[in-house]
Amino acid sequence: MPTPDHAAVPPAADRPRYLDPTAPVEARVRDLLSRMTLREKAGQLNQRMYGWNAYRRTPDGGFELTDALYAETDRFEGLGALYGLQRADAWSGVDHGNGPGAGDAAALADLVQRHVVERSRLGIPALFVEEVPHGLMALDGTVLPVNLAVGATWNPELYERAAAHAAAELRARGGHVALVSALDIARDPRWGRTEECFGEDPYLAARLTEAVVRGMQGEPDGAPAGRFAADKAPVVLKHFAGQGATVGGRNSAESELGPRELHEIHLPAARAGIRAGAAAVMAAYNEADGMPCSGNRALLTELLRESWGFEGLVMADGLAVDRLARITGDKVSAGALALNSGVDLSLWDEGFTHLAEAVVRGLVAEEVLDAAVARVLRLKFRLGLFDRQGAPAPPLPARGRELSTALARAAVTLLRNDGTLPIPAAVSRIAVLGPQSATVAHQSGDYTAPRHPGTGTSVLDALRTLAPPGVDIRHAPGCALTGGDLSGVPEAVAAAAASDLAVLVLGGSSARTPDTEFDANGAARTAVSHMTCGEGADLAGLELGRAQYALLAAVAATGTPTAVVLIQGRPHVVPDTAGALLTAWYPGPWGGEAIAEVLLGLTEPVGRLPVSVPRSAAQLPVYYNHKDTEYGGYVDESAEPLYSFGHGLSYTSFEYGPPRPAGHTVEVDITNTGHRHGRSVAQLYLRRLRTPVWPRTLELCGFRAVDLAPGETRTVTFPLGADLPGRGTVVEFRVAESARAALTAVPTQSFTAPDETPL
Amino acid sequence: MPTPDHAAVPPAADRPRYLDPTAPVEARVRDLLSRMTLREKAGQLNQRMYGWNAYRRTPDGGFELTDALYAETDRFEGLGALYGLQRADAWSGVDHGNGPGAGDAAALADLVQRHVVERSRLGIPALFVEEVPHGLMALDGTVLPVNLAVGATWNPELYERAAAHAAAELRARGGHVALVSALDIARDPRWGRTEECFGEDPYLAARLTEAVVRGMQGEPDGAPAGRFAADKAPVVLKHFAGQGATVGGRNSAESELGPRELHEIHLPAARAGIRAGAAAVMAAYNEADGMPCSGNRALLTELLRESWGFEGLVMADGLAVDRLARITGDKVSAGALALNSGVDLSLWDEGFTHLAEAVVRGLVAEEVLDAAVARVLRLKFRLGLFDRQGAPAPPLPARGRELSTALARAAVTLLRNDGTLPIPAAVSRIAVLGPQSATVAHQSGDYTAPRHPGTGTSVLDALRTLAPPGVDIRHAPGCALTGGDLSGVPEAVAAAAASDLAVLVLGGSSARTPDTEFDANGAARTAVSHMTCGEGADLAGLELGRAQYALLAAVAATGTPTAVVLIQGRPHVVPDTAGALLTAWYPGPWGGEAIAEVLLGLTEPVGRLPVSVPRSAAQLPVYYNHKDTEYGGYVDESAEPLYSFGHGLSYTSFEYGPPRPAGHTVEVDITNTGHRHGRSVAQLYLRRLRTPVWPRTLELCGFRAVDLAPGETRTVTFPLGADLPGRGTVVEFRVAESARAALTAVPTQSFTAPDETPL
Repeated sequence: MPTPDHAAVPPAADRPRYLDPTAPVEARVRDLLSRMTLREKAGQLNQRMYGWNAYRRTPDGGFELTDALYAETDRFEGLGALYGLQRADAWSGVDHGNGPGAGDAAALADLVQRHVVERSRLGIPALFVEEVPHGLMALDGTVLPVNLAVGATWNPELYERAAAHAAAELRARGGHVALVSALDIARDPRWGRTEECFGEDPYLAARLTEAVVRGMQGEPDGAPAGRFAADKAPVVLKHFAGQGATVGGRNSAESELGPRELHEIHLPAARAGIRAGAAAVMAAYNEADGMPCSGNRALLTELLRESWGFEGLVMADGLAVDRLARITGDKVSAGALALNSGVDLSLWDEGFTHLAEAVVRGLVAEEVLDAAVARVLRLKFRLGLFDRQGAPAPPLPARGRELSTALARAAVTLLRNDGTLPIPAAVSRIAVLGPQSATVAHQSGDYTAPRHPGTGTSVLDALRTLAPPGVDIRHAPGCALTGGDLSGVPEAVAAAAASDLAVLVLGGSSARTPDTEFDANGAARTAVSHMTCGEGADLAGLELGRAQYALLAAVAATGTPTAVVLIQGRPHVVPDTAGALLTAWYPGPWGGEAIAEVLLGLTEPVGRLPVSVPRSAAQLPVYYNHKDTEYGGYVDESAEPLYSFGHGLSYTSFEYGPPRPAGHTVEVDITNTGHRHGRSVAQLYLRRLRTPVWPRTLELCGFRAVDLAPGETRTVTFPLGADLPGRGTVVEFRVAESARAALTAVPTQSFTAPDETPL
Repeated sequence: MPTPDHAAVPPAADRPRYLDPTAPVEARVRDLLSRMTLREKAGQLNQRMYGWNAYRRTPDGGFELTDALYAETDRFEGLGALYGLQRADAWSGVDHGNGPGAGDAAALADLVQRHVVERSRLGIPALFVEEVPHGLMALDGTVLPVNLAVGATWNPELYERAAAHAAAELRARGGHVALVSALDIARDPRWGRTEECFGEDPYLAARLTEAVVRGMQGEPDGAPAGRFAADKAPVVLKHFAGQGATVGGRNSAESELGPRELHEIHLPAARAGIRAGAAAVMAAYNEADGMPCSGNRALLTELLRESWGFEGLVMADGLAVDRLARITGDKVSAGALALNSGVDLSLWDEGFTHLAEAVVRGLVAEEVLDAAVARVLRLKFRLGLFDRQGAPAPPLPARGRELSTALARAAVTLLRNDGTLPIPAAVSRIAVLGPQSATVAHQSGDYTAPRHPGTGTSVLDALRTLAPPGVDIRHAPGCALTGGDLSGVPEAVAAAAASDLAVLVLGGSSARTPDTEFDANGAARTAVSHMTCGEGADLAGLELGRAQYALLAAVAATGTPTAVVLIQGRPHVVPDTAGALLTAWYPGPWGGEAIAEVLLGLTEPVGRLPVSVPRSAAQLPVYYNHKDTEYGGYVDESAEPLYSFGHGLSYTSFEYGPPRPAGHTVEVDITNTGHRHGRSVAQLYLRRLRTPVWPRTLELCGFRAVDLAPGETRTVTFPLGADLPGRGTVVEFRVAESARAALTAVPTQSFTAPDETPL
């Protein structure tokens, strides 16, 4: 691979300051901006074309650039940013053979970049922006568990390492900027993007958002304007703000929330990510109480920039700028509204292509345009794009698999157990059943990198590998993920009846690639999509496919001890008919291994629920940190969830002593009272006793995992952080293993917050 | 009955100005206030005791006052207000024999008032405050259909007449102030108080709120400080604000709404009621984005008084002031917070009994206290309570029944009809089935005046009376309203099978008085409550009692043409298995008559839905006027309701011409294209095309009912009102028979609002 040589750099004495790598970033930005025409400036704010339309494969397996790219770079004599050059998946329509892979993606990026720089009078390179919601979404990129599974790990340190791997992978392929799901808070599981959330709680989400920012960006040299290391990637945290609160869990619909609810629940993750140095945020599709985020100056400018002091970039979501024409009447004024509100960089929109016209027509002040251009250029300088920085060496794929599996392992959450698990040594025949038991195609969620066939481990694969020698493993899928076809149930029931234990793997799917189904003669029938989750796949009833319930009932009726495993992107409604129930969320390609380890007791179950599990869709919402109104429940149903936020069983048991205040910390003694080693995830909740506005029942404000041998006791110490309530508020703290347990846990004495926080 | 002679009035020359009936109200208020002690002032702001604890029956059938009343009037040497002196119902625990009736309530009121005035140094009478949510809630008071049924009439003129009757009934019994449900907007049918709402739409609710204010208060002489006529009653509009938007439809839980949503949907009814002169509002239990309404200065003072200029009274809801101790730490500061926020008069709270202490401790400024006392006194002067005004003659009970039945008739809404209705002349055998078919106990909703047994008309009663001679009517209830007992189903099925047509009357109940059920031998068994609606009875699944579905399926399976009638306080989920479906909501005691008339075709069905009817609880919310986000629906269900807001069939059909703008009006030609006389309820919707904030799909902004003979065409004219969008907003108008029909209706040309509204 040749060293990039994008611009013919003149001798140092003659070259403009913006091309001097030793000059401060701000000086380079100002210098370059002063040389640009209005048209060139407008070009920097556009990210119009799909990256996969910029190239095609040549007969010899190389790449060539397309007329579409030439047309796009002609439009503004350059290119601001290019989205998804690496994407090769069902949505982009690029098949596995044609997309850029680990071996040639950097060369493709270089080819495109050379053209962009050459076409630009001032030699301005483009930003290459890629989806990295749970690993890089490019051919054979390392797939991590979805965010909801990451939320279940309660392990920011592990996630930070996985995020660092993903950023290194992106940069090794010539990509620059990572689009990262982080800011949406899961308040309504009907929403198909629940899987992209770290959960329902702002504190947990904030800690994981910090982790992904630190992991991907590292510590920039002299943040916020410092250089990124070659294996680090600036992140675009999405989405800002309140998208987890759209009415009815409807994708990109309206949010009606007021400012207090928005600030208390939906903004803390963004605030934490920005404090950690996040380079950019993406404005959300939804409106916030009347105004779509892309046109919402109160959010993007008054709050984000003026109040929080954010100096990074604001990117629009796809076609969100053009949507504003619904209220402005045309796309030119839609673009002007978005820019004036605080959007710097568009995504696929036409509206931003008219920004020069908008300036001429007086719809946008040139200083506003300049400020946006400066933010785009600043990011390019911070990435070293003007300075011939080549792509770094890729990280080891084995390290990616290891991190992905470690996250999956940490996410497996045991919800119910009558002793069925771990699988007893006496069990010699196991039936592995269910539509999620023997496939990896539905283990990974939406926005997943396509992988070569054969990559990954199903639960069946892993049990066959990990079960003790001599254990007989039978398999029958029983039914498909969706639909009501019960023809496979008898085979599954027979397998269960003939076994000592059944493992029934049920769930949902966010796979956009349809499954090919076969008829009785083995002939391929029409491809069938089982997608019930993911972006655009909202599920009103929170129910699995119909046949799965029939399969569960039939297997349970055999009397064979049964463990149900759920592989899913949201909590589904599952009846209480099996002896053990666990969820792995979408654990990624190697999730089967993590699940099998927990089933067999090779790994302790350490996942904890990042969302409350409802009894039915009719009782929504069920998040634990509702306002403290002591609601008594519905006539026909409790208002409490089936399983509480924070819940997750161990194979051992723990006892918590009373919490003790000690200076600026709270301490608690935790004892392993069972007979196995185990890990307790101790959760610190606060309860406001005297406060200027109506309080929530409980608020998570700390968590610590502690490993304990049988009989062992350790003291866990929670530092009281800077996010705690302000002056005069009186609070008490409780430590427990779930939000529900905290309701009845012994509190500390009450504290009054002094003038300075923390308490 | 003696003429009231509450105070020994001194000769005119000596008497203080506040006792001079010819002095202006404001002068009287100022004069009286200047004479009062702090303790007396605090007393005026308290409405602590339950009225039914103030008296007991004597052996001779008269009344005597209780020690509880003496203690309460001793506390502050007088009494601010007394709640529920007339209430005699399951909730108050006063049985029919002991409560005040039409004949002696005024005497009881007089007895209590004499004591209050005598106990007061300055002779200040008490306000007697009663529940009048759908008719006066006192023994044998005229019961009107619930608000949701009133919403279905789309007939403010008729409702205004009924409201006037209710006010006259209240005043004739010695009551003064009417608590009226009007401001809650039904956005989540799970909420048990949905029945108390005029529906989901702010425009329809605003017109009906104006109607109830005009009907009850009339035109006060020189409003806002003018005198009320003797048969008119000041209203307390409840609840202010946003109570229809609590999360999960949970009673008195939090509302998370932002200011725009609150202003656009939940405040217009209050604004309209206040413009119509409403004397008072009640602060709602719920919080509005963080602060309970009772402690919400932004709502009660900044918006209501400072921005809207409201000069009336703000009353707290029951114990709502004391609830504020959850955040203030104690009841003294809770009372101070409520008063400082804008509450003038408490309800049952302890917090307001400490207001004098709060002033002394500096928690409340005396001017703030004085302003609240002035509002209470002003209302007493406006009612003439200082001026020996006796109770007026009661209105005719027959007139009450007539108005109640007229409202019920106007509310019956035909949702589906395959020709089953009206009952054809050829039908000679009718089976009248279902748990709501032969009882009036469940026809009237919550907050219902208890009535002597035998009052009212069930569907069975009315069909027996109104069906043509010779028609054979069989009856079987089939099952109870709740529970799964199917033992009565076979009898009902047999009756259906042996009939030409079945009328199956299903529904819910808000009755607080349990039904007495009988065993096979006719012996009374334990009383059973069937309450699934009303205050505190929220229903997650929106389902009828289980047995009702089995009954419906079994009756439909007979093949006998079936009309299902729903008597209910909210939309329930009912499968599409009968040929005809209609809802009467809770139509009141004579609702059976109204329903039978429509079934038989003696009355045209003219009701229209005031709420969208969901397909299931899983798809909530389903109101028509959501934001215009073009949501595509859930994977497993449409996002659209089963029946749209505004929907209601006729026995004839109508055709609408294109709407024509004509000056400050929109006109449309409507033709009766069927073979029967009928009434079309033409609905004017606007759609915003260019607007500063994100618009709703459609907004109702006018409605007109028009009666048309077969073949007749009339032009309906809609004036464009003052509530229309402001300057620069571009809108178009559509006229249709429902919100769903309006989506595809021909629009007018678009209008740009000029500087002055209306358009």
